[in-house]
Amino acid sequence: MGKGRVEAFTDGVVAIIITIMVLELKVPHGEDVHALLPLWPIFFSYVLSFINVGIYWNNMHNMFHTVQRVDGRVLWANLNLLFWLSLMPVTTAFVGENHFAPVPVAVYGIDLALCAVAYAILVVMLRRLHGPGTTFAKAVGQDRKGKISLALYLAGVALTFISQWIGIALYVFVAMIWFVPDKRFERLIEKA
Amino acid sequence: MGKGRVEAFTDGVVAIIITIMVLELKVPHGEDVHALLPLWPIFFSYVLSFINVGIYWNNMHNMFHTVQRVDGRVLWANLNLLFWLSLMPVTTAFVGENHFAPVPVAVYGIDLALCAVAYAILVVMLRRLHGPGTTFAKAVGQDRKGKISLALYLAGVALTFISQWIGIALYVFVAMIWFVPDKRFERLIEKA
Amino acid sequence: MGKGRVEAFTDGVVAIIITIMVLELKVPHGEDVHALLPLWPIFFSYVLSFINVGIYWNNMHNMFHTVQRVDGRVLWANLNLLFWLSLMPVTTAFVGENHFAPVPVAVYGIDLALCAVAYAILVVMLRRLHGPGTTFAKAVGQDRKGKISLALYLAGVALTFISQWIGIALYVFVAMIWFVPDKRFERLIEKA
Amino acid sequence: MGKGRVEAFTDGVVAIIITIMVLELKVPHGEDVHALLPLWPIFFSYVLSFINVGIYWNNMHNMFHTVQRVDGRVLWANLNLLFWLSLMPVTTAFVGENHFAPVPVAVYGIDLALCAVAYAILVVMLRRLHGPGTTFAKAVGQDRKGKISLALYLAGVALTFISQWIGIALYVFVAMIWFVPDKRFERLIEKA
Repeated sequence: MGKGRVEAFTDGVVAIIITIMVLELKVPHGEDVHALLPLWPIFFSYVLSFINVGIYWNNMHNMFHTVQRVDGRVLWANLNLLFWLSLMPVTTAFVGENHFAPVPVAVYGIDLALCAVAYAILVVMLRRLHGPGTTFAKAVGQDRKGKISLALYLAGVALTFISQWIGIALYVFVAMIWFVPDKRFERLIEKA
Repeated sequence: MGKGRVEAFTDGVVAIIITIMVLELKVPHGEDVHALLPLWPIFFSYVLSFINVGIYWNNMHNMFHTVQRVDGRVLWANLNLLFWLSLMPVTTAFVGENHFAPVPVAVYGIDLALCAVAYAILVVMLRRLHGPGTTFAKAVGQDRKGKISLALYLAGVALTFISQWIGIALYVFVAMIWFVPDKRFERLIEKA
Repeated sequence: MGKGRVEAFTDGVVAIIITIMVLELKVPHGEDVHALLPLWPIFFSYVLSFINVGIYWNNMHNMFHTVQRVDGRVLWANLNLLFWLSLMPVTTAFVGENHFAPVPVAVYGIDLALCAVAYAILVVMLRRLHGPGTTFAKAVGQDRKGKISLALYLAGVALTFISQWIGIALYVFVAMIWFVPDKRFERLIEKA
Repeated sequence: MGKGRVEAFTDGVVAIIITIMVLELKVPHGEDVHALLPLWPIFFSYVLSFINVGIYWNNMHNMFHTVQRVDGRVLWANLNLLFWLSLMPVTTAFVGENHFAPVPVAVYGIDLALCAVAYAILVVMLRRLHGPGTTFAKAVGQDRKGKISLALYLAGVALTFISQWIGIALYVFVAMIWFVPDKRFERLIEKA
């Protein structure tokens, strides 16, 4: 079974998720600069989620590059990941509209953690299908970066109940280790 | 006439359907955990519909794999299926917002049944175009699983007026026989 | 310049147009059958617009099949057609929410007529680029069906001010001459 | 790393941006012609934004035609451009709903300017990857048209605080120099 249509469908769903999040940026009432200020929490959470969804698209793009075939399990593991990503617009709006209150920040982190779990399941399904020693298995490796991200998300959720700003800082930190093209970062993680 | 663009268009429409359903998951008012609880019926109906649309995408993906060509009738049979699938976000929200009241659950089942009918029509049009004995005709076979699903949907609609939970149980059961990759299930159905 | 990406972009925009129209089908308030009845004008106008957008997609699909190349003028002629098609969700909702009042029905017809004009312009641009005697020029021919459709839409808009039902009947009739795969219909039109 | 999926994802996101802008064209209340008149500012800003997004799609389409490969920096530069384009529906609605008040017009111009900056960054990243003397580097050239556009947008933002109509006129002028296929225009710009 070819991977082309899975990639096309995934691209479509991710393109829609990343775009409809902007629908939460409601047009401000009023026509002066002060009308824009109350939008900052929604704008900040939109930026963070745009980057997070962008990171997933980048990672899926790179991973599927070395994928040779897909089966039913992979299709469903992929749909599972798309499901948790599809909740991102809702959890983002929940955070933004409540000005980073602890429960919304924790819910947002749980969604990020479930995306990370779904991504790990997808990797497992693809590794099982391709077998050890294949280009795919070598390219993915131990996926330490993914495991560390998951741990940091869960830490973020827990520490949100001390202060939500710790949680947000951890989510931003995870985004940075994926986003910043810094080789030293990557070596540090591989040594961990 | 090539099948490539039909697949691409279908992927696009299904990607949008599966994603805009999440727009019904309105951001909860309030910032504590109690604000999330009233969302469970909408969340449950979203999960069920996400799986149902995912099953259709999987089945169309597999079926079009063996399709060799399309004609005007196939294009319209495909658009007909997309039409009934496009109502899924509305019927899902109708169920979720009315907390599984009987009429919405019946309307949801009627939409599922009409999707199944539209899928069967698409199979008929494609079989007529390809002729018996082709790879397509062999791959599709008698489509017993599709016929049993349709019967179960109709039973679900009827039994909803005794108790809507029977209807929902039947819809979940149909989703499971497509979703669970259990060969015994498939053999049972083929024997039926 | 290849036609592949123009087709892909067009498929994407048309897929979104045909799908977001369903967002106008607001979830009915109430949980019994009577809650569904007031939806019929919106449902009927959704069906009519779904078929109309489907016809355009079919026609563009068939036409681009014989297209060999595109240039800047074609790209903009195509975007112009997509623009008028993108108004379809708004004009459809305008008709449905006002229960087929004359002005909305006329506005809907004007949008249909402008789509037909935009389609004719796209055909002219493609014919100019390909030159007479090419496969494209032969496949498109005189486009009599398109010209008759435009005349019928304009008649529909005018006659709406006598009775909107004449207008609607004409729009439905035009949809039928494109939709029904009846060769006699097509011969009649070619003789006209 | 191939460019195919980047093109497909970009097409998807741009198709969604250009289409969801129409959701701001709310269905008018009332059923006569007077109900349509108050929509003109929203309609005009929709037309302007549709053309602007269409110009970006055209330019990206032409530019990626000569692109041979992409890397992580290009993916993120592309996502950065898509981010600022994704704000277009919001800034468009902000302008339309406030009937071209100065602050919304300035905000709209800032978004246009940030899109132009993001486009320039994407060009730089692609030029760095392909190296001088390649087909890509020759096709892009000095990108004077892009630099002039950015200067005009910034002038438009500043002059809006004298009169917003100057700002709008400048935005329309920039759209025209990209839209009108006039070679003299292009020679003038190249001489500048």
